[in-house]
Amino acid sequence: MPAKAKQPPKGAPVAEAAPLNGLAAQTEGRRRVVIERVAPELDGGRFPIKRGVGETVVVSCDAFADGHDVLAVALRFRTAAGAAWHEVPMQHLGNDRWQASFAVEHVGRAFYTVQAWIDRFATWEHQLHKRVEAGQDVRVELLIGAELVAEAAEYALPDAAAVLRSFAAALREGDAKAGFSPELAQLMATYLPRRYATTHERELAVTVDRPLARCSAWYELFPRSAALEPGRHGTFRDLIERLPYVAELGFDILYMPPIHPIGRTFRKGKNNSVTAEPGEPGSPWAIGAVEGGHKSIHPELGTLEDFHALVQAAKQHGLEIALDIAFQCAPDHPYVTEHPEWFRARPDGTIQYAENPPKKYQDIYPFDFETSDWPGLWQELKSIFAFWIAQGVTVFRVDNPHTKSFPFWEWCIGELKRDHPELIFLAEAFSRPKLMYGLAKLGFTQSYTYFTWRTTKWELTEYMLELTQGEPREFFGPNFWPNTPDILTPQFYTGQRSVFLTRAALAATLTASWGLYGPVYELLQYMPVKGREEYLDNEKYEIHHWNLKQPESISWFIAALNRIRRANPALQRNAGLRFHRVDFDFHESDQIIAYSKATPDLSNIVLVVLSLDPDALQRGWVQLPAEEWGLGSHYEVQDLLTGASYTWTSGFNYVELDPATMPLHILHVQRVEAPLHDVGDYV
Amino acid sequence: MPAKAKQPPKGAPVAEAAPLNGLAAQTEGRRRVVIERVAPELDGGRFPIKRGVGETVVVSCDAFADGHDVLAVALRFRTAAGAAWHEVPMQHLGNDRWQASFAVEHVGRAFYTVQAWIDRFATWEHQLHKRVEAGQDVRVELLIGAELVAEAAEYALPDAAAVLRSFAAALREGDAKAGFSPELAQLMATYLPRRYATTHERELAVTVDRPLARCSAWYELFPRSAALEPGRHGTFRDLIERLPYVAELGFDILYMPPIHPIGRTFRKGKNNSVTAEPGEPGSPWAIGAVEGGHKSIHPELGTLEDFHALVQAAKQHGLEIALDIAFQCAPDHPYVTEHPEWFRARPDGTIQYAENPPKKYQDIYPFDFETSDWPGLWQELKSIFAFWIAQGVTVFRVDNPHTKSFPFWEWCIGELKRDHPELIFLAEAFSRPKLMYGLAKLGFTQSYTYFTWRTTKWELTEYMLELTQGEPREFFGPNFWPNTPDILTPQFYTGQRSVFLTRAALAATLTASWGLYGPVYELLQYMPVKGREEYLDNEKYEIHHWNLKQPESISWFIAALNRIRRANPALQRNAGLRFHRVDFDFHESDQIIAYSKATPDLSNIVLVVLSLDPDALQRGWVQLPAEEWGLGSHYEVQDLLTGASYTWTSGFNYVELDPATMPLHILHVQRVEAPLHDVGDYV
Repeated sequence: MPAKAKQPPKGAPVAEAAPLNGLAAQTEGRRRVVIERVAPELDGGRFPIKRGVGETVVVSCDAFADGHDVLAVALRFRTAAGAAWHEVPMQHLGNDRWQASFAVEHVGRAFYTVQAWIDRFATWEHQLHKRVEAGQDVRVELLIGAELVAEAAEYALPDAAAVLRSFAAALREGDAKAGFSPELAQLMATYLPRRYATTHERELAVTVDRPLARCSAWYELFPRSAALEPGRHGTFRDLIERLPYVAELGFDILYMPPIHPIGRTFRKGKNNSVTAEPGEPGSPWAIGAVEGGHKSIHPELGTLEDFHALVQAAKQHGLEIALDIAFQCAPDHPYVTEHPEWFRARPDGTIQYAENPPKKYQDIYPFDFETSDWPGLWQELKSIFAFWIAQGVTVFRVDNPHTKSFPFWEWCIGELKRDHPELIFLAEAFSRPKLMYGLAKLGFTQSYTYFTWRTTKWELTEYMLELTQGEPREFFGPNFWPNTPDILTPQFYTGQRSVFLTRAALAATLTASWGLYGPVYELLQYMPVKGREEYLDNEKYEIHHWNLKQPESISWFIAALNRIRRANPALQRNAGLRFHRVDFDFHESDQIIAYSKATPDLSNIVLVVLSLDPDALQRGWVQLPAEEWGLGSHYEVQDLLTGASYTWTSGFNYVELDPATMPLHILHVQRVEAPLHDVGDYV
Repeated sequence: MPAKAKQPPKGAPVAEAAPLNGLAAQTEGRRRVVIERVAPELDGGRFPIKRGVGETVVVSCDAFADGHDVLAVALRFRTAAGAAWHEVPMQHLGNDRWQASFAVEHVGRAFYTVQAWIDRFATWEHQLHKRVEAGQDVRVELLIGAELVAEAAEYALPDAAAVLRSFAAALREGDAKAGFSPELAQLMATYLPRRYATTHERELAVTVDRPLARCSAWYELFPRSAALEPGRHGTFRDLIERLPYVAELGFDILYMPPIHPIGRTFRKGKNNSVTAEPGEPGSPWAIGAVEGGHKSIHPELGTLEDFHALVQAAKQHGLEIALDIAFQCAPDHPYVTEHPEWFRARPDGTIQYAENPPKKYQDIYPFDFETSDWPGLWQELKSIFAFWIAQGVTVFRVDNPHTKSFPFWEWCIGELKRDHPELIFLAEAFSRPKLMYGLAKLGFTQSYTYFTWRTTKWELTEYMLELTQGEPREFFGPNFWPNTPDILTPQFYTGQRSVFLTRAALAATLTASWGLYGPVYELLQYMPVKGREEYLDNEKYEIHHWNLKQPESISWFIAALNRIRRANPALQRNAGLRFHRVDFDFHESDQIIAYSKATPDLSNIVLVVLSLDPDALQRGWVQLPAEEWGLGSHYEVQDLLTGASYTWTSGFNYVELDPATMPLHILHVQRVEAPLHDVGDYV
């Protein structure tokens, strides 16, 4: 090992420096560089940002010092807490703002911070240049430079040290040109020690997720409705037979409502009736019975072995099984007798059931997160996840997380992801914005959204801008669902096929993650409970048998959407979304919405033009940023649903969308290979 | 002392609670309330915000918890680190945002944070209300309420405890109405212990300054030019004779360039000539000679005793003396021989003079803030301030602070203001925005600005919006100067009186602090050095004698501006500024600028309407938010410069501004005492 290599070369891991930004007085008063406004930085570094593995983090900051010295600013990053830092120089953007980026290459956690220092050699060289230009006597300045070069030589590997010493000699002899040698600059950048570097006082974290966490298509079904023949309770084995169907639809994740034993006390009947008739199956969200609780399987669905078989079979179809984790208990859940201290006792000796006064939910006991045995409760709840992780599940949809303590989630998800960074948690929090964002910040990978209630062009546009351009883009993983077992919104009540097509298409193309509750969706089910945004004869309370081969099924369309998503990287991310103007009669159309998604290098651009009007044919003129996209005056758009191609221009392009046939285009935008001749060439 | 008063009543100081927000897992998992996005909070609490004594701090935050429980959120504040907290309830603004305010009542530092908890009694009462409305059996709920009331009784003073116990008894007996008693609610808010409260993890600071720090009018002059008769070096005794003049002009602060012995080596001559002729006085910024350095007085100005007399006499005229602290040395400064280690040595044995290559300033040695004796240097520099504080000076204008180390300033100002919170530091940092804002954040009270170079309507508007509505409003104290000994901008070069009037008026009314370099300003001096934005025959290098009684002097106008500022609280703050539309020919006029300043209660509204055109008469139509200001269809505006009154309407109001006479109005806007009869009344 070379004796004098006191400092490793640039780009390699570098040694730790104590963070001291601004508090220098007590320790080292010579750190002259100030670092401020590092971005991204959520709540002063309190929460990590999120990225998918392979994605980049663009980091910027203000950095400045007194006087006119030249600064060097470096982005430092490492793949684990305490690991060696790597670094990359930050570029000056102007106005004392600096920027650089790094790629996150391992699922788990990465960390970054910023370090800045006075670049002594660059300062000297910059000033020497001005002095020489002004014809000044620079002999003393060259001696100063020689001192710097000699200092660097002390820290250099032997060969480099020799080169540096010869440069120092040249400078000492008055050779000003030597000072401007790029070789010298390179060596000095490598070996001259940083003095009095300032490090940003916070080390910032990135949660790095696997690709599925960032881009996923979910299919929800009730396994008990999956029996091959009518009149029977579906099982995991039946579900294995259903897997090819789900896989053909192109989904990534098959998600089931809770699979645990269902309580009998206060069991709900058909259409949420307060008393179940004998033989009614009850709601799977009323978890726990004599057969067991959150770590048990409802016997009619099958055994743990059957479940393992399902997980394995799903894998073979490219599907992952997602479980629904609902932290609540039916009155006959074993926890109620084993751990009464985890529930709230009432003065009459009963246990407090769920209420949102005046509504009472006697079939559900919520956990009391203010129990004195909160450590025991937390550990047990975490162990439920751990149990299912041990059965091969890595994707969880969490029921109503906003009604459980936020500190619990932060701890629980943090602990679980430390050992299993591949885990994906989808928050079912149809709640207020701050709560939804709060859950995302503290650890939930994805979240349900307000998409279901965003139906107009203005609402969709505003919401997407908030999600993709506001601060939420750093931590919130939106997952768009046109329906759920709990939500059937009014736009479906007329049963118009066009609404089913467009709502699915919007969900599948606006965000990188979407989901459907089927088969009701592709079978165009639309009858609501009167006065409620919910399905009539809801599968939550009864078993159905679905004829998947009904001719009106739009399963072919759902499959096409997922196929298009898989073929187009632009649709696999939330960044790169732009809305485009659609004119009709010289006004912005309020019925046709047009938006594109593009990869950063513009190698993949997908344009969606979609009519929100389920009743009448809509026409409009779409204008795209063709020049910005380098498309020239003419370019091709190919409809990925139909295969039809059109030649569009940099001006306005006519579209006509008929709800009776196909109310949308999903267009692949591309340069024309052999450009059309410009008539002007021949004039 | 009452035995059971475990918790003091609300509004009184409250006991400390450990800050635990979000890190609850390791310590107390039952803190269910999340606090986020506390504002104002500069750089995650790294820097204090600033307020004047008596001003209020409006604090807001997000606070939310899981579920439907009712939250209580309190703003906590204290007047010194470690002192007892006071608190005030925060109001819910909607969308989980909360707000409250407190007044800062003592010069020094105040601190604030936020605490939030589940309000158990309010939650119970809220739910009881819904249950009773729905006609439910609430007997068990009343028992639960009785338990809460009994718990509060344990912490109450004896009388209150008795009342609480009787309420508990009533509830136990099934008296639901007792649960809605306002008296009970009040007692419960006072005595029911907070459980599992969350405290924001950061305690945030406010630098509380005296009124002069927030609103001040500065007058700069060279005391050596203040001799009563021509041909003599002015003295402090002469300056005492000049005080009535400065006081009549209405200024608050009399600021002098450095008053220390002036170096002889490389002394600059007239018009910055590199060699001084014998007898030339040199630049006062070339500090230090055989007579002494930064703690000495230039002998020709007088003695320390004379200086004391000046400070005293100034006080009697309502003036404070501000000194110019320039941390740099002439080559013959005693520090150069006493502390050569505080300067940078060159390889040829010389000391590094100031340079901005290729420019050389051989008459100035900068301190080397990277000296190994930085602790000694810091202490000595601080002691310079301390010396002048001991002589009665509390206002300092700091020369080029951005060329000295930022950590030094943060430490130095912090240390000095800890013992002398009345100190005012004005940063002369004509530098890049981040540096100027950085100095303000770390402690400078006021700052010079870009005002000098903001001359068009658009530039002035944009700059004022940045200063008064952007984040800088929390920490940056702009001080507008139309000129300085270093800066004579091109708009003055024609010598038009109108420019002198409007630039002074803009400075005096746009911000709460302004200053002038006189008597050159009021005497309309305007000859620049060719090719430089600087005065010809600059007082920096020579002694002048001014005839203050020249008929063209606009001292009467300056005096009027300061009189108007003192009479109108709206002009004494930077908040409350609004720009108003001025139309001409159905377009926004680009020559007439109109803006108002108003106190929060609208009891004082001042409108400035000013023509930026020094050449031609300008006309326009001004529209004010008359309805918003509660002025009715007609109201009165009185010109505070001329006394003339006009009746204006809620529509457009004609103005005509002539640069040859008076290119601006400063209008006091007021309700008409006896409103004009509306003709409609008689129809």
